[in-house]
Amino acid sequence: MCQIDKGLLFASVVWTKCWGKISFMPSKTLDVMRSDARKIFMAGVKSVEPARAVETLVQREGHTLTIDTRQYDLIQIENIYLVGTGKAAAPMALAMEQILGNRINEGLINTKHGHGLPLKRLKLREVGHPVPDEAGMRGAEAILSLVQGAKDRDLIICLISGGGSALLPLPVEGISLKEKQELTSLMLRCGATIHEINAIRKHISRIKGGRLAEASWPARLATLILSDVVGDSLDVIASGPTVPDESTFEDCLAIISKYRLESEVPFSIRNYLHEGAAGRRQDTPKPGNACFARTQNVIVGSNIQAIMASASEARRLGYHPLVLSSLIEGETREVAKVHTAIAKEIVRTGNPTRRPACLISGGETTVTLRGEGRGGRNQEFVLAAALEMKGLDRSVILSAGTDGTDGPTDAAGAIADGNTVGRSLNKGMDPASYLERNDSYNFFSKIGDLLITGPTKTNVMDLRIIIVG
Amino acid sequence: MCQIDKGLLFASVVWTKCWGKISFMPSKTLDVMRSDARKIFMAGVKSVEPARAVETLVQREGHTLTIDTRQYDLIQIENIYLVGTGKAAAPMALAMEQILGNRINEGLINTKHGHGLPLKRLKLREVGHPVPDEAGMRGAEAILSLVQGAKDRDLIICLISGGGSALLPLPVEGISLKEKQELTSLMLRCGATIHEINAIRKHISRIKGGRLAEASWPARLATLILSDVVGDSLDVIASGPTVPDESTFEDCLAIISKYRLESEVPFSIRNYLHEGAAGRRQDTPKPGNACFARTQNVIVGSNIQAIMASASEARRLGYHPLVLSSLIEGETREVAKVHTAIAKEIVRTGNPTRRPACLISGGETTVTLRGEGRGGRNQEFVLAAALEMKGLDRSVILSAGTDGTDGPTDAAGAIADGNTVGRSLNKGMDPASYLERNDSYNFFSKIGDLLITGPTKTNVMDLRIIIVG
Repeated sequence: MCQIDKGLLFASVVWTKCWGKISFMPSKTLDVMRSDARKIFMAGVKSVEPARAVETLVQREGHTLTIDTRQYDLIQIENIYLVGTGKAAAPMALAMEQILGNRINEGLINTKHGHGLPLKRLKLREVGHPVPDEAGMRGAEAILSLVQGAKDRDLIICLISGGGSALLPLPVEGISLKEKQELTSLMLRCGATIHEINAIRKHISRIKGGRLAEASWPARLATLILSDVVGDSLDVIASGPTVPDESTFEDCLAIISKYRLESEVPFSIRNYLHEGAAGRRQDTPKPGNACFARTQNVIVGSNIQAIMASASEARRLGYHPLVLSSLIEGETREVAKVHTAIAKEIVRTGNPTRRPACLISGGETTVTLRGEGRGGRNQEFVLAAALEMKGLDRSVILSAGTDGTDGPTDAAGAIADGNTVGRSLNKGMDPASYLERNDSYNFFSKIGDLLITGPTKTNVMDLRIIIVG
Repeated sequence: MCQIDKGLLFASVVWTKCWGKISFMPSKTLDVMRSDARKIFMAGVKSVEPARAVETLVQREGHTLTIDTRQYDLIQIENIYLVGTGKAAAPMALAMEQILGNRINEGLINTKHGHGLPLKRLKLREVGHPVPDEAGMRGAEAILSLVQGAKDRDLIICLISGGGSALLPLPVEGISLKEKQELTSLMLRCGATIHEINAIRKHISRIKGGRLAEASWPARLATLILSDVVGDSLDVIASGPTVPDESTFEDCLAIISKYRLESEVPFSIRNYLHEGAAGRRQDTPKPGNACFARTQNVIVGSNIQAIMASASEARRLGYHPLVLSSLIEGETREVAKVHTAIAKEIVRTGNPTRRPACLISGGETTVTLRGEGRGGRNQEFVLAAALEMKGLDRSVILSAGTDGTDGPTDAAGAIADGNTVGRSLNKGMDPASYLERNDSYNFFSKIGDLLITGPTKTNVMDLRIIIVG
């Protein structure tokens, strides 16, 4: 027999996963559900904090260092070097300092201005981002020369996070940083894919496309990656400095010819690629290259990891969590329509999950600008979803960047509920026209529903949370 | 103990819903999975065939006629009249003839040219669609006068399906069919919502907006509806001839003024609306009107019903079905991206459901035309999804209209798998450019992957099925 608290007049029955066992949860107010959505988001963010992400997969016990599933015998290892790049490089490095202490012989880290932390045993440089600069290049040179000096009994630990590509620039001799940037903006303008851009980038870099792994050989190399890329493709994150590259110099020339950029690509780059295709320049290391036998690449934090932590928190708070996908891309307002269609089906028929439900998704959508407004993809998602969920009882929508920022605004995202559109109309605002102008920031600012977290010091893209209570 | 057939070398374990019970299913080939997708689609379509839909919710046992949950005592009922409109009106009427036989006193049906069937006791008219015509109007007049003659001991059964609005046109006196059509195209052009257009349509019709129910009073009225509208809103389907209307003449004038159409709306319509606002014309019947106490509206077939039947078939075939939503709207290629993101997450992490999985959704998406190609929203969905699922092992995508048509083509939709894009590239085709030109029909025609069913004689919008085996 189960006990029922008769004081809970509007108690709703929660069938737990275990057949036959019934627990009771009082219906939550909208305010409580809004606060739950925030908690669910923050639980996701916390799970991928750089230091925690590193500590979860890296353990030291006596003389054994365990990184994910691989064990390193610290007695057999002579020197340990730490290198790293990315916006989260400093807290990741701090975690490694705490684990390895004075076993670290030397280390060099490039991070973004304002993202440094005081480190004991490592040298940290704050360098240019998103536009790479000379300081970044000097840091990259020093990192390359450090790993080149490592021997076969040495272990190099490499820390990579979002922004890691721009923060570690090192073009091959004869190509300037400025020329490399020219190439990137040319290719972005002509609509080349990220894989096409990366193929060329990797071939004119001394670090990207597996070249850092090549330079590290014969030392052992373990790369810890905080992924800010949809799908966590190792060769895409920071242009894969420790990952095999399958593209060739010929591919690069074919891409340039495909977009008819022969006359626009800087001469030094074209020349270098032609020399490479003629066999006079060394290609990037391919799968099977000996250096990768001594390389371990480990994702320590990612969007799906944050989502799963959010889902646990949602379950703890009494909701049925449903993880839709960590791979959501596409035009934000259309993506919002699909999400709200699922939420409404929960209300209508209890599919794909029952109330009280919590839909969670991640990834990174895009916004095609139509107006002159201010906003970000997360705020736009919430506004578009709120318009679709207008009047839907007991529903809450939250979308925010795990890094605490969303577009060129001071907000991480926004939070709305089924009454938000009605409230804004009562204030004389026209929510549809805010959406039309891409002015979600001003909409949520006026109505007091911005989600402001400040910088979280991590980044695994966005989280979207829809509660149907 | 469960028996294992050791001959099934590559057997994969299927955990059934019942804890502890395990059954084994051999891995299916891609061909089998493609055929399964077809079966799953057809099971959905079959479940909403007009006759079957009617027979499922209407039963006669002796002197009792049961329609959904309501019972009618045929001894107490003097006359039974059948009226109907829509593309599926004929098979729905045929089913009612089989249930009620000679208890039907008289009946009048309007359907689209080519959609008629030989009926025994009912008079069927084939009339204009999508552009309403005089024949439709004469049929509507006859239907109105039939129900107006009914008495309080009579029962009127009204059959409604897709196209029912255009097939039953009856503007109020002084407004011509042509003027009514002018108004509709005016409002569509200025971006008015379907609710705004319907508000005005209902106020200048003698049948829509509950007026058929009003005319039927004091007879009893049971309306059986095959819904082709996202969300199955009773007041939207065929402009709700037997459903209360909450809008007023004043609302209509406000809508015309909102879109600044005062000078463009035909004079007869403006004049009629102004007279109505001044109280000189009768408003549509509102909620609480006595006629609705004697009216029963029943959805006999809908998109979610088809989806649930498809889900059952998927389960029978060994998949874990997951019903995403019957309410999917939005730009087709973006909707496809969200669906494939979910499919890919199933492959990566087993969320939101485990393999072998079958995602099912319904509703109706839109296509913004970019090119001069040929296709429909379903074929475009499958092409866009196939591009996203390129190379994804053991995956099948099907999307098709339940009516057997998709855009201006002879196909219901298309079917693709993870190899489709590769196969087309091998044939020298560029699938991305087919999508860019909205030329999905020619793409699937060349590659032999159109789904052609012929007319199914029902319509509950689209079904989308994604198998991850």
